[in-house]
Amino acid sequence: MSTSTRTRLRPDQRRSQLVDLGVRLLATRSLDELSIDLLAEEAGISRGLLYHYFGGKQAFHEAVVRRAADDLIEQTAPPGHGDPLEQLAASMTAYVDYVVANRAGYLSLVRAAQGGNETLRAIYDDARSALTDRIFTEDAGGALVEDTPAVRLLVRGWAALAEEVVVTWVTDPAGVSRDELLAILSASLPALVEAISAPS
Amino acid sequence: MSTSTRTRLRPDQRRSQLVDLGVRLLATRSLDELSIDLLAEEAGISRGLLYHYFGGKQAFHEAVVRRAADDLIEQTAPPGHGDPLEQLAASMTAYVDYVVANRAGYLSLVRAAQGGNETLRAIYDDARSALTDRIFTEDAGGALVEDTPAVRLLVRGWAALAEEVVVTWVTDPAGVSRDELLAILSASLPALVEAISAPS
Repeated sequence: MSTSTRTRLRPDQRRSQLVDLGVRLLATRSLDELSIDLLAEEAGISRGLLYHYFGGKQAFHEAVVRRAADDLIEQTAPPGHGDPLEQLAASMTAYVDYVVANRAGYLSLVRAAQGGNETLRAIYDDARSALTDRIFTEDAGGALVEDTPAVRLLVRGWAALAEEVVVTWVTDPAGVSRDELLAILSASLPALVEAISAPS
Repeated sequence: MSTSTRTRLRPDQRRSQLVDLGVRLLATRSLDELSIDLLAEEAGISRGLLYHYFGGKQAFHEAVVRRAADDLIEQTAPPGHGDPLEQLAASMTAYVDYVVANRAGYLSLVRAAQGGNETLRAIYDDARSALTDRIFTEDAGGALVEDTPAVRLLVRGWAALAEEVVVTWVTDPAGVSRDELLAILSASLPALVEAISAPS
């Protein structure tokens, strides 16, 4: 971006732009590798200015992780048309594409969030909840999933399954094709819901 | 235990006994709360002697987590008779009972292992692998699950589902009964395997 463009930005726009850059940098590296120094170098601005925008590394990481989670939620939104199974399949395809394109950052996000930092964990939990609650709000008619406590719990478990399967596969496909992966992701939810609705 | 019993123990037996005590203490508190001081107090021996046995808090924690993981694997072993679905149900019931009885320690184990410490993560990953690989070795005939790369991946995902569901439920059942929980755990695996074997 040119200096003239930069100078026209308001501080909140500039900060937002820096968060975007952080998310792009996170796509190919871990959160630990995403330093203020690196961001300063890539953005072509001083460390001092970055501290002005973010206050510190922790707050910068939180902003990046929050934006990454928002991106994930947005990019995997169901298309809003088609039957529920088609929408689920489209959403799962977008999820796999997102993780493949942002592998290092996504793995780092999952790992950092599962670990000790309470704020990152909260961002991650919120994103997980948004992704799973969406299934109920966008399927308000109950065509795919009935909204009961047991099904809510099951869908939460299914989200953990999907994450584990995709993280494992993107790290080492072990002979499983992308189509097989997508079949696992799309077929698993309705199969699970059916299994607990009508136990054999 | 009496002093006379204690003096007859070899160092490795004494160490093992201290690890057992650590596991019992972990059942009702987090790993962070499981200090050398607490162990010394509960065991009635000096901190110095504990450092002699374990070298430090980190090594003590590793020994306790490894023992807890071994206990979990042992206590959830399928009975070895009955059809595969009955064995799975028995194993899942034992798993839920284990987590209910060792709630704080189990949650702490899962959280600590998912976090930053590489050694704890490795112990946790080994335990997860042992729990899931068992499904294939104990079902060598393939009655429940066929041994293919896609099914291996799916079973790994199912283990994540089972863990998420049980951890969520034990923290807040949200109206889901123990029987509903057990139904979710037992019915989910065959439903998943069937869904990817014969996609609709």
